[in-house]
Amino acid sequence: MANIPACEVEQLTTLLGSTGNASMAAEYICTRFINTSNNFTNVSYAIDNTYLLFSAYLVFAMQLGFAMLCAGSVRAKNTMNIMLTNVLDAAAGGLSYYIFGFAFAFGVPSNGFIGKHHFGLNNIPNPDFDYSSFLYQWAFAIAAAGITSGSIAERTQFVAYLIYSSFLTGFVYPVVSHWVWSHDGWASASRNSESASLLFDSGAIDFAGSGVVHMVGGIAGLWGALIEGPRIGRFDRSGRSVALRGHSSSLVVLGTFLLWFGWYGFNPGSFLKILVSYDTPNDYYGQWSAIGRTAVTTTLAGCTAGLTTLFSRRLLVGHWNVTDVCNGLLGGLAAITSGCAVVEPWAAIVCGFIAAWVLIGFNKLAEKCKYDDPLEAAQLHGGCGAWGLLFTGMFAKKQYVNEIYVIPNRPRPYGLFMGGGGKLFAAQIIQILVIIGWVSATMGPLFYILKRLKLLRVSKEDEMAGMDMTQHGGFAYVYHDDDDSTHPPTGFMMRRIEPSGTTTPGPINGSTNNVV
Amino acid sequence: MANIPACEVEQLTTLLGSTGNASMAAEYICTRFINTSNNFTNVSYAIDNTYLLFSAYLVFAMQLGFAMLCAGSVRAKNTMNIMLTNVLDAAAGGLSYYIFGFAFAFGVPSNGFIGKHHFGLNNIPNPDFDYSSFLYQWAFAIAAAGITSGSIAERTQFVAYLIYSSFLTGFVYPVVSHWVWSHDGWASASRNSESASLLFDSGAIDFAGSGVVHMVGGIAGLWGALIEGPRIGRFDRSGRSVALRGHSSSLVVLGTFLLWFGWYGFNPGSFLKILVSYDTPNDYYGQWSAIGRTAVTTTLAGCTAGLTTLFSRRLLVGHWNVTDVCNGLLGGLAAITSGCAVVEPWAAIVCGFIAAWVLIGFNKLAEKCKYDDPLEAAQLHGGCGAWGLLFTGMFAKKQYVNEIYVIPNRPRPYGLFMGGGGKLFAAQIIQILVIIGWVSATMGPLFYILKRLKLLRVSKEDEMAGMDMTQHGGFAYVYHDDDDSTHPPTGFMMRRIEPSGTTTPGPINGSTNNVV
Amino acid sequence: MANIPACEVEQLTTLLGSTGNASMAAEYICTRFINTSNNFTNVSYAIDNTYLLFSAYLVFAMQLGFAMLCAGSVRAKNTMNIMLTNVLDAAAGGLSYYIFGFAFAFGVPSNGFIGKHHFGLNNIPNPDFDYSSFLYQWAFAIAAAGITSGSIAERTQFVAYLIYSSFLTGFVYPVVSHWVWSHDGWASASRNSESASLLFDSGAIDFAGSGVVHMVGGIAGLWGALIEGPRIGRFDRSGRSVALRGHSSSLVVLGTFLLWFGWYGFNPGSFLKILVSYDTPNDYYGQWSAIGRTAVTTTLAGCTAGLTTLFSRRLLVGHWNVTDVCNGLLGGLAAITSGCAVVEPWAAIVCGFIAAWVLIGFNKLAEKCKYDDPLEAAQLHGGCGAWGLLFTGMFAKKQYVNEIYVIPNRPRPYGLFMGGGGKLFAAQIIQILVIIGWVSATMGPLFYILKRLKLLRVSKEDEMAGMDMTQHGGFAYVYHDDDDSTHPPTGFMMRRIEPSGTTTPGPINGSTNNVV
Repeated sequence: MANIPACEVEQLTTLLGSTGNASMAAEYICTRFINTSNNFTNVSYAIDNTYLLFSAYLVFAMQLGFAMLCAGSVRAKNTMNIMLTNVLDAAAGGLSYYIFGFAFAFGVPSNGFIGKHHFGLNNIPNPDFDYSSFLYQWAFAIAAAGITSGSIAERTQFVAYLIYSSFLTGFVYPVVSHWVWSHDGWASASRNSESASLLFDSGAIDFAGSGVVHMVGGIAGLWGALIEGPRIGRFDRSGRSVALRGHSSSLVVLGTFLLWFGWYGFNPGSFLKILVSYDTPNDYYGQWSAIGRTAVTTTLAGCTAGLTTLFSRRLLVGHWNVTDVCNGLLGGLAAITSGCAVVEPWAAIVCGFIAAWVLIGFNKLAEKCKYDDPLEAAQLHGGCGAWGLLFTGMFAKKQYVNEIYVIPNRPRPYGLFMGGGGKLFAAQIIQILVIIGWVSATMGPLFYILKRLKLLRVSKEDEMAGMDMTQHGGFAYVYHDDDDSTHPPTGFMMRRIEPSGTTTPGPINGSTNNVV
Repeated sequence: MANIPACEVEQLTTLLGSTGNASMAAEYICTRFINTSNNFTNVSYAIDNTYLLFSAYLVFAMQLGFAMLCAGSVRAKNTMNIMLTNVLDAAAGGLSYYIFGFAFAFGVPSNGFIGKHHFGLNNIPNPDFDYSSFLYQWAFAIAAAGITSGSIAERTQFVAYLIYSSFLTGFVYPVVSHWVWSHDGWASASRNSESASLLFDSGAIDFAGSGVVHMVGGIAGLWGALIEGPRIGRFDRSGRSVALRGHSSSLVVLGTFLLWFGWYGFNPGSFLKILVSYDTPNDYYGQWSAIGRTAVTTTLAGCTAGLTTLFSRRLLVGHWNVTDVCNGLLGGLAAITSGCAVVEPWAAIVCGFIAAWVLIGFNKLAEKCKYDDPLEAAQLHGGCGAWGLLFTGMFAKKQYVNEIYVIPNRPRPYGLFMGGGGKLFAAQIIQILVIIGWVSATMGPLFYILKRLKLLRVSKEDEMAGMDMTQHGGFAYVYHDDDDSTHPPTGFMMRRIEPSGTTTPGPINGSTNNVV
Repeated sequence: MANIPACEVEQLTTLLGSTGNASMAAEYICTRFINTSNNFTNVSYAIDNTYLLFSAYLVFAMQLGFAMLCAGSVRAKNTMNIMLTNVLDAAAGGLSYYIFGFAFAFGVPSNGFIGKHHFGLNNIPNPDFDYSSFLYQWAFAIAAAGITSGSIAERTQFVAYLIYSSFLTGFVYPVVSHWVWSHDGWASASRNSESASLLFDSGAIDFAGSGVVHMVGGIAGLWGALIEGPRIGRFDRSGRSVALRGHSSSLVVLGTFLLWFGWYGFNPGSFLKILVSYDTPNDYYGQWSAIGRTAVTTTLAGCTAGLTTLFSRRLLVGHWNVTDVCNGLLGGLAAITSGCAVVEPWAAIVCGFIAAWVLIGFNKLAEKCKYDDPLEAAQLHGGCGAWGLLFTGMFAKKQYVNEIYVIPNRPRPYGLFMGGGGKLFAAQIIQILVIIGWVSATMGPLFYILKRLKLLRVSKEDEMAGMDMTQHGGFAYVYHDDDDSTHPPTGFMMRRIEPSGTTTPGPINGSTNNVV
């Protein structure tokens, strides 16, 4: 903020010269300027931390969104299982990201591959990071694991979940975020070192993580789901796809809106600070405007993708499907996440429109390949996330790139279609390839080893019965109770049927006591 | 903020006079004052945008609240239908409000009827509007459409929904908000032009939109529901009212609390800026206090209306009804929305108390008139919204009106019961009449034309079966699955019954395999 | 902020001496410094109120969290009942806290026992409190009542609920918060008077209310549940414990995440102001850092408690239980609430680990004593809350205690295990004992009197049938409707069974019309 020296007594004394008591006058005046300057410093920390903390809280709310979206998208018999994984993403992620995840991701100074400071928040706060930085990045880390859990839902042993989730949140994801977001990262667009060493003189621009978060989560899920194979009954004997519908559309819509709500912390929050002025003649234009614009591009991409999905699915499938619209909308949000800060609002509409078709295309492909992903997580976060990185390479605007990724006295490459040449686009392609490679090289073997150790997939019987019954102590919903069995039923109730203990459907006693 | 000139070198040079180097000393000092002044400008943009953006996110959360409230208030067979309309309000509204809605509402300079600048966010940001302004107003626009969808729930074709929603969000609502909230609006209390031209020397005070948002949505819903007629079964052959209960009280409470939560963005957020000092001897009293007071009046009105409804319904109906309390509470919130910023907390209690009775009264009237509104939206948002405008005309406090709606050197009319004369009250009545007229003149014919084109109401068969089945691809809830049919059932499950394909209730095989 | 005098014209005139026009120059300069100082004052009010208001909104969201957690944890037949109590906590609490609760708690000057100013927000705003202070404290007050409602769920008359809730929110809780949080409170660590008069030279440190909120709510619930006795069927004839499972795990997880989300308003928000600099050489370290650290300790305690519960319950019970994990996590959050601001992140992990075992222990004890608390509220909020107070007495760090609870020129006692002696620990024990005593002495008799007046517990018949049917007008869920009975059923539906009007389970007609 205070971009000129606050005040220097000696200088001012000389200037005031032969005045009554020049040195004391100078000190009097300078003390006040210095105090003013200190106050500004405090104000800027207070504002920026307020902004970052509330953004972090919003990103945390996305974990609730994931939990509800996942719960609604699986069958009732696996509801507790999937929700428990979402709670644990947050809980286990909190400890692992505190102990080493944040250090791997943002520890500076370090090499370009992995960070090596701030283990256990050692030396935090410092001029670069405060506690709020950790909280914000933790909320991001657990989002990646949450994505993956969707791909392998309804058939994975809980212990496998615990293992891959810790590995992903504690190591695989932090390394990628180090590459792209740390000032030491080899692919970072805001690398500290000489600008000459930026990847293709540009670095990859993944502002809020279409690649770093969404592709990482999606590709991890892809390998998990591929290695586990589809759920029983997902493809019939003749190989035709059979929809295994989620059990509650209300939870799907609840989760989608919560994710959308939290995305306003995810994308605009990724600026980290709001009190940054830009070097323009208009004082009303600063980082606060760029943040608002980011909220607008995020909104427009999601809206467009949702609408596009609505109409295209109506044409393709014949009805207006709320679940599809929700997924389309989320695809648009995942896609804009990379470029949200550096594109114009109109370009966000392009981004969302194509994201919807990317998702539809990958879903078709998945069906053809008999790939089963209960949440469409690989298609949505992996596919639309990759599209988002390409989109940024095409539509990033010169002005915005230079305002946000500042290299003094040197122009930056920007979007291919905006006249900025192919360098940024090339860097984006590199990022896509490297993320696919890294996540495949780490998570693929992990899932494979888990499979060989028979720790990956539940037994056929357990999968049929539902994991809530077999691993989590009961069914998620109980609409009618034991203690009422001697009581005349009233209202609308669910039929209670006792587990028969056999694997063939034995006759069920038709008497009232059993039925009620 | 900086209400005195930052510093002028020439002036200060003269004043420092024969000093050692007066002009350089003056420059030295002035540079610092100018820098300080610039810093304050940046700080004020950062704070105000932080405040407005997070308020916008809260208002957006109301859309989730509407979705859950609506879902819980309709029957299970129409859950996906109503939730899809809520998702689409947000999505379609995002595009239409971006392309022209915001321009119609706030484009300046313009005439008093409709705005004509900023199409597609052209020339945004500028000193008056930043991107955050658009985001905030978009969240308001989609709320209006959300209200209407409640009135016509459970019987409306989806295509009709798409048409009226775009028309309402893109044209009908923006025009009203231009009248009352734009500095060019003919009814605006903060009109830019000569104060003489204010409506009744006052302008209508609808601070956060009891009229602009709630009445517009409610009156639109009234016409839709009137033209469609009641749902099948809502009134029996003898004309008696039959409650068609919503399917989930949990969703109703969830939605109500989310709306209440979001209302803290809606009402206090409508100040748009928080860093505004008032001209008072107490420096601790400023717009931040007025914002806090607005949050308090909002809270007290909602609380009082909820409690009043609880006890009055207990007396009238004989039980403690949570759905009624939720609606009452929302009625209180809708009513206080107009005057929240300009009344004392005690007056908010009066507002909420009467709002509860207004809702009860309009509900009685609706039943008498065989008017069927599944969400009571016309009664609640239309009725309590109109009461809110009248209430403001009666209880607006002189001090608050003059602090918030500033006309230099000229006293403003204020509340009738507060000794402020009848001018404000008259302006409020005009606003009520004009909103009723305008919405009736635009939405009435639209619904009528849709009806003539047979695009409005679904067929009798579809309505009986539920729109989720006939238009949206299935039932919203699936608690038991196909692939388990060869498996012994465990836990509590819903009964699955296959569609029989005939319209008469054929015998259903009572064997276990079918029942389970 | 402005810790040096803004500028005094006379002083500067003297200093500038024989300059051209010294007095005018001094005035010119001083006017600008004074203006700068005023601007900072405004900025600090704007930032701090923004911070406090949004924190208050988050705390309010906890009420929604309680409603969903409670709803999911009770049986379906009591869902509306418990949700209505949560809505009413907020509504009735709004009025009572406005009229007298806030005055009892924070009215100054007053004695050490109870406040006596600001009834009906009289004299608000003032330099100490703005409207936002009231809103924030109201959101706390209703949380206490929400805790208690969990303990007595599923068997309490609604009228008893109305009575105890008003008494708790309006009197019992405000008095405790006066003792610990008001500057006049006898146990307060930030007491205004001579530091000599601090309790054990220290005062009790209950930063965000492990004792003031959680223990008060939990102990009140303990007495209610003890006096009512367990729910019918909770312990069988041989005295064995029978789990009466809640009806929806989805609502439990939804509620838990919402509470976690809101806890970021509860704990970090309890700083009330964010723009406070600390007297350190590093300007980047200030109250904003302490606030971020508080968010981190809160997170880590919750995460650790959740994980500990997961594994310990797996060992003890044999399955991975999502409801247990949710309760464990909330126990960790309740425990850290007292010390969140004054301990290191690593200590928060200790806090959470032990909190999980405290909850497990108290649950075992409750089962042995045949104590039935449907939400485990007394064990969780009472037990873990008390642990949290002890924890603070052991692990409070010297630096943080002195930064946050400032006594000029005098060192403060701090944590026993951190080398700070036993004085703080002793004060914490006193707080625990006094809260138990006060709440027992007020709420115990109240519940007893209600019992003697036959206003406390519902009849056996009503309890068996469920309170939704008998007191609230119907069942909370309706998945299938009357008007479809003449229609072929489609999809998955619940079985509808008419109330038979007799108390013995009569035969149910097997024909289609009845079954559907």
